[in-house]
Amino acid sequence: MALVNEHYLKLTAGYLFPEIARRVNAFAAEVPARAAEIIRCGIGDVTEPLPPSAVAAMRAATDELAVRATFKGYGPGTGYESVRAAIAQGDFRSRGLEVADDEIFLSDGSKGDCGGILEILGAGNRIAVTDPVYPVYVDANVMFGNAGAAMTGGGYEGITYLPCQESNGFLADIPSSSVPAPDVIYLCSPNNPTGTVMDRARAEAWVAYARSHRSILFWDAAYEAYNRDANAPRSIYEIAGARECAIEFRSFSKSGGFTGVRCGYTVVPKSVCAYTREGQAVSLHGLWTRRWNTRSNGVSYAVQRGAEALYTEAGRREVAALVDFYMENARILREGCTNLGLKTWGGVNAPYVWAKTPSGFDSWSYFDHLLRNARVVTTPGAGFGRCGEGYFRISAFNSRANVQEVVRRLATV
Amino acid sequence: MALVNEHYLKLTAGYLFPEIARRVNAFAAEVPARAAEIIRCGIGDVTEPLPPSAVAAMRAATDELAVRATFKGYGPGTGYESVRAAIAQGDFRSRGLEVADDEIFLSDGSKGDCGGILEILGAGNRIAVTDPVYPVYVDANVMFGNAGAAMTGGGYEGITYLPCQESNGFLADIPSSSVPAPDVIYLCSPNNPTGTVMDRARAEAWVAYARSHRSILFWDAAYEAYNRDANAPRSIYEIAGARECAIEFRSFSKSGGFTGVRCGYTVVPKSVCAYTREGQAVSLHGLWTRRWNTRSNGVSYAVQRGAEALYTEAGRREVAALVDFYMENARILREGCTNLGLKTWGGVNAPYVWAKTPSGFDSWSYFDHLLRNARVVTTPGAGFGRCGEGYFRISAFNSRANVQEVVRRLATV
Repeated sequence: MALVNEHYLKLTAGYLFPEIARRVNAFAAEVPARAAEIIRCGIGDVTEPLPPSAVAAMRAATDELAVRATFKGYGPGTGYESVRAAIAQGDFRSRGLEVADDEIFLSDGSKGDCGGILEILGAGNRIAVTDPVYPVYVDANVMFGNAGAAMTGGGYEGITYLPCQESNGFLADIPSSSVPAPDVIYLCSPNNPTGTVMDRARAEAWVAYARSHRSILFWDAAYEAYNRDANAPRSIYEIAGARECAIEFRSFSKSGGFTGVRCGYTVVPKSVCAYTREGQAVSLHGLWTRRWNTRSNGVSYAVQRGAEALYTEAGRREVAALVDFYMENARILREGCTNLGLKTWGGVNAPYVWAKTPSGFDSWSYFDHLLRNARVVTTPGAGFGRCGEGYFRISAFNSRANVQEVVRRLATV
Repeated sequence: MALVNEHYLKLTAGYLFPEIARRVNAFAAEVPARAAEIIRCGIGDVTEPLPPSAVAAMRAATDELAVRATFKGYGPGTGYESVRAAIAQGDFRSRGLEVADDEIFLSDGSKGDCGGILEILGAGNRIAVTDPVYPVYVDANVMFGNAGAAMTGGGYEGITYLPCQESNGFLADIPSSSVPAPDVIYLCSPNNPTGTVMDRARAEAWVAYARSHRSILFWDAAYEAYNRDANAPRSIYEIAGARECAIEFRSFSKSGGFTGVRCGYTVVPKSVCAYTREGQAVSLHGLWTRRWNTRSNGVSYAVQRGAEALYTEAGRREVAALVDFYMENARILREGCTNLGLKTWGGVNAPYVWAKTPSGFDSWSYFDHLLRNARVVTTPGAGFGRCGEGYFRISAFNSRANVQEVVRRLATV
């Protein structure tokens, strides 16, 4: 009798974005005349065209596949060497950070990596996430058996939630020594959903904490391109000691507009170890290499060439222009909210504005209020965790005209 | 203290193809003057250009991404509806087989799927594989904790090996009732590495066996396009009852030449169930859907369009021509071996020829003999399992000129 993975049965039904889609569809069906007016600032999906350098490289790569002499079959499971080198040089060594080419692992996106990395870790690790949090971290851990039952009111038994609230500027505090130390800690900066960035001192404290407990930091830097705060690390490897305890996730989705193209990468320094139950240290680099070579034949050739092109001089300019565009959107949204008297966070070093719902509204009632009265889709903060209750997220990934219209409409409700 | 997945530590060092690469590189370094003459018929990687229909579709899709009005961001995690529909219609319903569009799950290749599917199954399943076998099935199961220690001489404790030998035509027999029934059985037809195809009667017996034991068949049909035997099912769903017990893996790698493009799919009928420890049936379709939506944002847009184009009238013709080309290679290799007095299997409904090593040679010594004296790379049968000892595999994926040259050289050694 084939046994099912019973951990899946613990998952609560409503993943956030399907629930939002359900409510939007219900509204559209109810008031079809207004459906076309709906502006979606919920899910963080890019809207602007792909950078021309990436397009040209992907076209050229596709053309190579059309000719026998330049045809490419199986590539290396962990990515072409030239692509890994362009990344290690462009994102790290050019900034004075020590990362070797073979510490870069190409993937079809960060979403897969921040769950897949759990495959090389053992059963019984205590997992910490922030609250609010990107739901994928939690759901992946539930699937892998790292959580207990769903709790009434949200969250799962066995997961350590690190509260992020106004009182700590929505940045996770180091756990007190009275609670059991988590073995794996997910940190995301610039943060999804709150748009906050972690300052250097706090990042240093987390690295020190991880090292002293032989824990591992999963540093999600998917929004790194939006971070312009000189006092906030863009990579965790800016922090001394991070190469002993941190794995970093990067994505081209929000820098190069690759949400449909699918490419990201994970940095696994050779010096990051996990431990056998007997306490023997095992470098995770070899395990992650083996995992990729056994479980995958790597990323689509043309996609890798597209990602590589983002590191050319033209590619960098185009990425910078794309980020500037969305950051101006973020500024407009943030100032629009502020002008309405809403208290906001983020939107300065991140493409998300996090705002407090007006008095009398909780997250979902304000979501419904904006949908019905402004035809604007946001994301209710409560969907990201208990500490998100009373807040909402607006995504800056949209056209300029839509963003301006959102601000106008918010002023009318 | 972060715990490592200790199952990885059971993996034996030498994955087959890296070991082959090591020996080839050593020979090339030893005799650099002959290095350019080496012909690689080891790994099963395609060599001919991508079908023009796929190239055109991938170009057009890339162009769509270059323009705001046609830009595509996140797609559905399980694949675009039109692509799933083209597959369900083209590969199944047009052949009278009942498969719904939403039972097709797009992926970046079959290699990932035949390991990833284990995520939705529980711990404690007894896994059966054939011997010889595609090494990825075994290694993935070791990583997931479904195997014990590596055994001296090959294989792992806890895995059920189904011997495939000359006596059974290299086709797995139904286990006797005296051994514990496996819960999951991997079957591959046309077979990698032996090139044999499973006849209908045997496939029916496997479906009956799986149903009577509430086991699941993982039917790997990556080489289905090469099967021209009217008496051998191209899909397991040709067998009555398979929709209750079988998951089928398909790939565009060997039909459309997609080894570098990366696309495949898995069929999970809604009626396939696994069970809780208490014996409650759970449909795997919902779990696999959830797995994809949580762990991935789907396959690259242009790649999906390329795969879809293989189902157009022109695309089908091009795929057929590509398969014909490699099948003619297979015929040349098979007849070449036969003419030399070697006993062969496969090469008729599969792109692999499986041959018995001449007297006095075991798998690896004949591999070395061919490498040194004919500068031809094959795959030693022993690399696929104990029952592969005394055989070798030649891949038909090569240029016509190389295939003809291989036959000439084999005659000289």
